[in-house]
Amino acid sequence: MKILILKENFLNGLNIINRATSKSITLPILNNILLSTEKNFLKLSATDLELVIKYWTLVKVEKEGGIAVPAKFILNLISFIPDQKINLEVKNNILYIEGKNYKSQIKGLNPEEFPIIPEVKSDKFLEINGQVLSEGLSQVIDTASPSQTRPEIAGIYFSLSKGLIEIVATDSFRLAEKKIVLSKFSLDQPFSLIVLQKTIREVINTFGEKAEKLKIYFSPNQIMFESKMTEINHPQIQIVSRLIEGEYPNYKEIIPKEFKSQLVLQKLDFLNQIKTASLFSGKINEIKLKIDPSQEIVEIFSQNPDLGQSKSQIKGKIKGEKAEISFNYRFLIGGLSNIKSKEVMLELNGEDGPGVLKPVGEEDFIYVVMPIKST
Amino acid sequence: MKILILKENFLNGLNIINRATSKSITLPILNNILLSTEKNFLKLSATDLELVIKYWTLVKVEKEGGIAVPAKFILNLISFIPDQKINLEVKNNILYIEGKNYKSQIKGLNPEEFPIIPEVKSDKFLEINGQVLSEGLSQVIDTASPSQTRPEIAGIYFSLSKGLIEIVATDSFRLAEKKIVLSKFSLDQPFSLIVLQKTIREVINTFGEKAEKLKIYFSPNQIMFESKMTEINHPQIQIVSRLIEGEYPNYKEIIPKEFKSQLVLQKLDFLNQIKTASLFSGKINEIKLKIDPSQEIVEIFSQNPDLGQSKSQIKGKIKGEKAEISFNYRFLIGGLSNIKSKEVMLELNGEDGPGVLKPVGEEDFIYVVMPIKST
Repeated sequence: MKILILKENFLNGLNIINRATSKSITLPILNNILLSTEKNFLKLSATDLELVIKYWTLVKVEKEGGIAVPAKFILNLISFIPDQKINLEVKNNILYIEGKNYKSQIKGLNPEEFPIIPEVKSDKFLEINGQVLSEGLSQVIDTASPSQTRPEIAGIYFSLSKGLIEIVATDSFRLAEKKIVLSKFSLDQPFSLIVLQKTIREVINTFGEKAEKLKIYFSPNQIMFESKMTEINHPQIQIVSRLIEGEYPNYKEIIPKEFKSQLVLQKLDFLNQIKTASLFSGKINEIKLKIDPSQEIVEIFSQNPDLGQSKSQIKGKIKGEKAEISFNYRFLIGGLSNIKSKEVMLELNGEDGPGVLKPVGEEDFIYVVMPIKST
Repeated sequence: MKILILKENFLNGLNIINRATSKSITLPILNNILLSTEKNFLKLSATDLELVIKYWTLVKVEKEGGIAVPAKFILNLISFIPDQKINLEVKNNILYIEGKNYKSQIKGLNPEEFPIIPEVKSDKFLEINGQVLSEGLSQVIDTASPSQTRPEIAGIYFSLSKGLIEIVATDSFRLAEKKIVLSKFSLDQPFSLIVLQKTIREVINTFGEKAEKLKIYFSPNQIMFESKMTEINHPQIQIVSRLIEGEYPNYKEIIPKEFKSQLVLQKLDFLNQIKTASLFSGKINEIKLKIDPSQEIVEIFSQNPDLGQSKSQIKGKIKGEKAEISFNYRFLIGGLSNIKSKEVMLELNGEDGPGVLKPVGEEDFIYVVMPIKST
């Protein structure tokens, strides 16, 4: 391999694909990235065997070839090199890097030793704005289960039907559902799939800042997110990931259709008062909401025998029954943080029934949270 | 105690004094701060028994008194409270905090249980601009020894003579010396003292941003840094600290008076090339400088059998002998990072003699660094 590459493009690619590398001790090659020429592109690939990221950039190819080099190391090195144009050459599995006043040699590995990077072949795809998708994914991802004991709820659930994507995450104590309307999206029959949480995180990291069009390809076992180079019809970035097998819980059942009490509150005031009360909560993160519709007041109360107690009041529009309900403050904060509107609606179903948080004025997000049962 | 305080002032004080608290398990009271009224001020105090920070703020005092409360906890709580005016009241060692829509109670401790906070009585003092002092201290502090095995070099050395403060730090591999000229400063006879590294860090944190006048008081066993309230002649912040006993090394001896080779280089280019080379250095952080006065070129070289090698060149004004000298790259970076000028002078004394880094055009800073001896 012998190429001339622009530092900026190389660095951009390295920053993106570096996140797919794995610190595997049993398979140290996964710590590397694969550099290889492909027509007049340099292709950068990295994988942890579940997730693959590929990145292409235009270069001047003098000789074809490839090499695998340590990911973090080459990223640091290229970021320090002052030159804007960098020559890369591979001889005997050594990568020679040369700028105007700079030369280095990095010991690499034979590209043949790199795991085979799967290609997703599918004509089932949809097109979506990368920023819209990433914003929606951000609203649900932190609600997914951090534990792998039930792999299906450690993932993010996608349900696709004509003109609509529903994205869902739950950890069995709470659930977030985001709806994205895609008027142009038609398909033969609805289908669903469960995507790894880390894949979703990389999608947000990679495509979240740019409002460019993405294609999402679906195959029976894989999903691929792809962006194109703006100038030419060639992929720029591909994120390919395996899917999670298993059946997602029938979550629609647990979303309450009714409520006993309904509150409309200023979101930031409510969030701030929950944070204040949280300082006094105990080991199970319990804070209590006392709702008094006749006064149009919610009192937020918490106490801790070692520290003391906290009591605050917030005014709001309140309908329905008087109630006293305890919640894990982390779950309330998790929901409120993902609601974008200034006002928030909280619907409650007594001290043991699920509560629901929604933005006021928008129908695209819902967050269900279970109370802490009274003892 | 019963007072009315402005949130902003309270929070400002809590942020500053919180850093003097200690996570001592044997003396858990050091985790607390002491609140006490003093005339029409609230005084906040915290200590780890080596270092004390005190902060005063004007309040409306309705009833005198005091209480000790958990430092981190009260800081978090006050930062969350939305009200601008806060009522504080102490009854039976409980602190009642009350805003417009907010009430809390914190269990505190009897102020009598708090360690006695020493007062520094001394008429030996100097006046200095806080920002100038902090900048000078920042240039040397990271060169002090991180280990406590030789307590004297774990501290920062102050040498005071007529019109001049010299501030020195060393870890025995390298040494930094900063000179601050104080034309108005006269004293009977020169003296010197060694201050705890953590005290100096708090001085930088506390006074570094404001160009206000500080007084530094000296007593045989203590040092005190004091700023005043701008409006009235009353202390705002005091940092009091014990001194380190022991004799500071006679460091003037090791500063070379001559050189065999002298280089003037662009600081940022040099720093950047050292960082690049550092990626290829081995366990002892070794990089090699090859100086060729006839070509006016320095080559920066490093290699590592596992990774490869790096070679770069930088042009400069070079006098004296040809040389090849190895340094710990961290020590070079440490010196260069604390030099403010665009150009830097490096004076070398062969492969075993000390090197010296200095700003070009200023005489107030010098950094001595020992090479890695050739084996």
